[in-house]
Amino acid sequence: MFSIHYRDNSCSARTGELCLPHGPVTTPAFMPVGTAGSVKGLEPLQVAELGYRLILGNTYHLFLRPGLEVLSRFGGLHRFTGWKHNILTDSGGFQVYSLAQLRKMHDEGVEFQSHIDGSRHFFTPESVVHAQRVFGSDIQMALDYCTGFAVDRQEAERAVRITTDWARRAAQAWRALDEDYHGLLFPIVQGNFHHDLRRRSAAEISELDLPGVAIGGLSVGEPFPVFEEFVAATAQLLPFDKPRYVMGIGTPEYVLSAIEHGIDLFDCVFPTRAGRNGLAFTDRGRVVLKHAMHARSEASLQEDCDCATCRQYSRAYLRHLFKAGELLGPVLVSRHNLRFMSRLVERARAAIAGGRFQQFKREFLAGYGRGES
Amino acid sequence: MFSIHYRDNSCSARTGELCLPHGPVTTPAFMPVGTAGSVKGLEPLQVAELGYRLILGNTYHLFLRPGLEVLSRFGGLHRFTGWKHNILTDSGGFQVYSLAQLRKMHDEGVEFQSHIDGSRHFFTPESVVHAQRVFGSDIQMALDYCTGFAVDRQEAERAVRITTDWARRAAQAWRALDEDYHGLLFPIVQGNFHHDLRRRSAAEISELDLPGVAIGGLSVGEPFPVFEEFVAATAQLLPFDKPRYVMGIGTPEYVLSAIEHGIDLFDCVFPTRAGRNGLAFTDRGRVVLKHAMHARSEASLQEDCDCATCRQYSRAYLRHLFKAGELLGPVLVSRHNLRFMSRLVERARAAIAGGRFQQFKREFLAGYGRGES
Repeated sequence: MFSIHYRDNSCSARTGELCLPHGPVTTPAFMPVGTAGSVKGLEPLQVAELGYRLILGNTYHLFLRPGLEVLSRFGGLHRFTGWKHNILTDSGGFQVYSLAQLRKMHDEGVEFQSHIDGSRHFFTPESVVHAQRVFGSDIQMALDYCTGFAVDRQEAERAVRITTDWARRAAQAWRALDEDYHGLLFPIVQGNFHHDLRRRSAAEISELDLPGVAIGGLSVGEPFPVFEEFVAATAQLLPFDKPRYVMGIGTPEYVLSAIEHGIDLFDCVFPTRAGRNGLAFTDRGRVVLKHAMHARSEASLQEDCDCATCRQYSRAYLRHLFKAGELLGPVLVSRHNLRFMSRLVERARAAIAGGRFQQFKREFLAGYGRGES
Repeated sequence: MFSIHYRDNSCSARTGELCLPHGPVTTPAFMPVGTAGSVKGLEPLQVAELGYRLILGNTYHLFLRPGLEVLSRFGGLHRFTGWKHNILTDSGGFQVYSLAQLRKMHDEGVEFQSHIDGSRHFFTPESVVHAQRVFGSDIQMALDYCTGFAVDRQEAERAVRITTDWARRAAQAWRALDEDYHGLLFPIVQGNFHHDLRRRSAAEISELDLPGVAIGGLSVGEPFPVFEEFVAATAQLLPFDKPRYVMGIGTPEYVLSAIEHGIDLFDCVFPTRAGRNGLAFTDRGRVVLKHAMHARSEASLQEDCDCATCRQYSRAYLRHLFKAGELLGPVLVSRHNLRFMSRLVERARAAIAGGRFQQFKREFLAGYGRGES
C-alpha cells in the first residue's frame, strides 16, 4: 500500500508511492484543502491539472453542510463534487477545537454547537468513522483531542489519553465497516509540546498498526524552531514503513522542514487563502500584488512557472484585478499558488532521488528569503 | 462592414455580420460586460469558449483604474487583459450619470468626482474618444447625456441637444485619429420617453453617418411595455443598413423584444450579476439555487445545455457552493448564464433565418414564464 522509493542519506527525507482507492499518490505530497467540498475558486479538473491526486475535505464542515443525508444520496463526496481522484477527510477534531462554540470534551466524545446555526451535535470516534464512510473518504482520520500551544500539562495529558482511546475505538469501528469500502484510517499522535507525552502518544498510536499515522497539534501557534524540533522528534518515533502526515502546514519553509524530517503528506489552506488575498508565492519570495511596484509590471508571477495564470497574465493585470475587487483575481492567484506548491514538492522529490535534498532546500530558501514583496 | 444576411418578414428581426478589427461578429449578439477589463469570474478563453467574440468594457471604470498610463504602456486593453477578440467600450456617459459623485453637466463636457477616491475629472467628447483610442476599442461610443425615467421635459431636451453636439465633436475627433487605429465610433440616440425628442435625436444622430448607432436612455427604470414601445419606435427611425445597439439590456424578455424590433447588439451585467447571486437562467424560467427544492437535485441547471457547468455539476452541488459561501458557485453559475444567453441568441438567429422568429419568441417565453424558481 505504501512503498518507499528513494531515501536521501543526508537526512530523513524520502519519496514513495501511496496506493489509494482512487489511484496512486506520489509522496511527499502537498494536499490542497477543499473544506466544504471545493478547493476555493478552482474546479476539480483544474486541481487535477495542477498535479494533485489527493485533496482534503473537512468532516466538521461537510457533516454540518450539506450533511450526511445529501452526501449519502449522492453516494459520497466524489460524485457530489465531481473530483475523480483521492480525498482525505480530517476527523473534525481540529475544527471542533478551533471553530465550534460551547465545546465540551467528554471521554465518550465531543459535544459542540455548530458555528453556522448554533445547532447541537455530538461526535464520537465511531460516528466520525461512519460519517467518513458516507463521504467515501480514501483516507479517513480518527477523531482526536487537539490542544493549543500554551495549555497546561494536565490538559495535554488528558488529550493524549483520550486521543489514544478514541483511536482504538475508531480502529475497531473502521475494521467493522462493509467490504465495499476500501478507505484507509490514520490515527493522530498528540502530546502537545512535551517530548515525553509525544513519545507516549506515538507508542500507543503506532501499536494500533493502522495504515498510516498523522502528527497533530503542531502549527497551532508555536514558533517555527519549536515546530521543527517537535516534527523531527515525533517523526522518528513513527513506523518507518508507513506514510506520515503532518496536519495543517503549507508554507514553503514548513513543508521543506517536514520533508527533511521524513514526512510524506501535509495540507494547508494557506496557498489558497493567500491567493485570495493577492499574495503569490514565487521562488524569489512572496509577491504582494497590492503593492504599487507591480502596477506596470509586464512580468508573470514567476517566469518559469507552467500554470495557466503565469502563461497568460502579467503582474500588472493581476494587481488590477485585486485593486478593482474582481472575482477573477483570487481564482488566478490561488491557481498559481497551488501550482507553486505542487512544483515545490516535485522538485523536492527529484532532489531526494538525487540525494541532494539538503542542498536543494538550502538553495531554495536562500532565494525565497530574499523576498520580492 | 455590416452585412444583413436574413430578415424575418413577420417582424423587424434580422441577422447579420459585423466586421471588426478583431474578427467578425454574428448578429444579433449579446455582449457580456467586463466593466474593469474582466467579465466577472471568467477568464478570456472561457468567455470565447462560451461563444462570444465581442465584450464590453466601461470607459469610466478603466479610465479611473488602471488608468490611461498603464493601458497605454500595455498597448491597450487587449494585451492588458488577454482577450483576443473584439471589445466595445461605452463612453462613460451612463456611469457618470449613475455612479459618479457631484456630477455637473456643462456644454463643454462633464465634471465629476470618482466614486472610488473622490478625485475630480472632466470628460469631453474628445477626451473620451482619445481614451478609447488608448484602450484600442474595436467599437467606441460617443459621450452622451443620459437621463432617467422621470426627468422633466426641459432636461430631456437639454440632453438631446448636448448629446447631438457631443456626438458631432466625437465624430470629428474620431475621424482625426491616427491611421493605425481601425475601431468604429457609434453615437447614441437619447430623447427620454418623448417620441418627438427621440425622432429629433435619431435624425440628428443618423445624419452624422457613423458606422453604427446606439439607443441610450432605455432600461433606466421604465416599465417593460414602455421600454418595448420606445425600442420599437426608435429602431424604426435608424438607418436600416447600420448595426443598432440597445445599451443595458440582458434578460431573455428584453433581448427577444429588442431582436424582434430590429436590434443587433445589446449588453448587460445581469447574466453575471444574477449568476454571482445564485440565480440561473433556464428554458423553464429562473432557478434560485438557495431554495431548498434544489438541495437533493441531481439534475444539471439545464439538461441540454452544453456549458461546462451543466456537463459537470448538479443543482445540489451548486446550491451547496452558494450555501457554503464558496467562491466557485458564482463562477460556475455566471458561466452557465452567459452560455444560456449566447445559446438564446444563436437560437434566435436560426429562427430568423427560418422566418419563424415570432413563433420561437412566443414558445420560448411561454416555457420561460412557467418559472422553476
